[in-house]
Amino acid sequence: MKLYDLTLSGNCYKVRLLAALIGLPLELVPVDFLAGDHKRAPVIELNPLGQLPALEDGAVVLRDSQAILVYLARKHGGEAWLPTEPEPLARVMQWLSTAANEVQHGPADARLVDKFGLPLDKPSTLRTSDFILPLLDRHLATRDWLELGRPTIADIAVFPYVALAPEGGVSLDGYAHINRWIARIKALPGYVAMPGTE
Amino acid sequence: MKLYDLTLSGNCYKVRLLAALIGLPLELVPVDFLAGDHKRAPVIELNPLGQLPALEDGAVVLRDSQAILVYLARKHGGEAWLPTEPEPLARVMQWLSTAANEVQHGPADARLVDKFGLPLDKPSTLRTSDFILPLLDRHLATRDWLELGRPTIADIAVFPYVALAPEGGVSLDGYAHINRWIARIKALPGYVAMPGTE
Repeated sequence: MKLYDLTLSGNCYKVRLLAALIGLPLELVPVDFLAGDHKRAPVIELNPLGQLPALEDGAVVLRDSQAILVYLARKHGGEAWLPTEPEPLARVMQWLSTAANEVQHGPADARLVDKFGLPLDKPSTLRTSDFILPLLDRHLATRDWLELGRPTIADIAVFPYVALAPEGGVSLDGYAHINRWIARIKALPGYVAMPGTE
Repeated sequence: MKLYDLTLSGNCYKVRLLAALIGLPLELVPVDFLAGDHKRAPVIELNPLGQLPALEDGAVVLRDSQAILVYLARKHGGEAWLPTEPEPLARVMQWLSTAANEVQHGPADARLVDKFGLPLDKPSTLRTSDFILPLLDRHLATRDWLELGRPTIADIAVFPYVALAPEGGVSLDGYAHINRWIARIKALPGYVAMPGTE
């Protein structure tokens, strides 16, 4: 199973993290992002959106970090990381949307501006961060994991760009519940870090 | 099953549309968006993000239109609208992320500016629209539905804000494959419209 990968991408890291937690070996294919290789073959043929990560598992080709988490969790994680009953599946799904929407356009985009110089609207990324992080902190005030009382791909999808928020100038000081949740994720058996989350 | 609803919201419409297609009755609870009732009880207690729609099904409370589609499809749609095998589930999931990310921050946000006067970055919404719509059109050039050769919640999640794009000043002229896909969705048995999609 090949992951077209960028070490500094939180979206690629999500996949590497879940694979490590479920003990699944991945063949990493490094893609030179700064050289624009994600916009050229072979990546653009695997993912027409020209985004990383992309996954190739025999004839199965998938784009989008959340979709790849879903695939690995269903194929190799049993019901543990992504249950298939309507309510728990939908509970996890809520956070996959939050990861693709508010977490991406908040702390993740803020980091793209500060760390990679992308010409995005920084004030907008800070407003979105100031919207979602307090809500996340309050959600975690009464629970250890985002849903179902155990780690699921909801946690894996949301974790990277929250943990990396300081790299976009978004402080996590004062978010005590988020910080404890980050520590719990880092304590999971098999956990691997990425640059910026240590 | 109660849907906290706004007639003019494409995200609420997704849920009404899937319910109509699978023959599921919904009790609609209209929420006065312009009066800010989505930021007050009872909606804010059901969805701390203060967004519509929210779903209440007995003790089950869900936010996020994609998550609600997942719930209804799994609970009432069998495997037809959302399969549970790893590959087809992940294929559909790719488009739920696209709906929450590029479609939301492209045509949906463009419409929020033009139709509701929200102070978003209009040029950014147009750039995102110009990125995702040609890709969607090319994807649909060789297939009738987004994935699996049949209508799934991928189509239902992406359809509303694409069909409503002209209300945000985003023309669909020239996207022949998108327009034929829109026509196919409108021809589905049980299809219901919303203002702007007729």
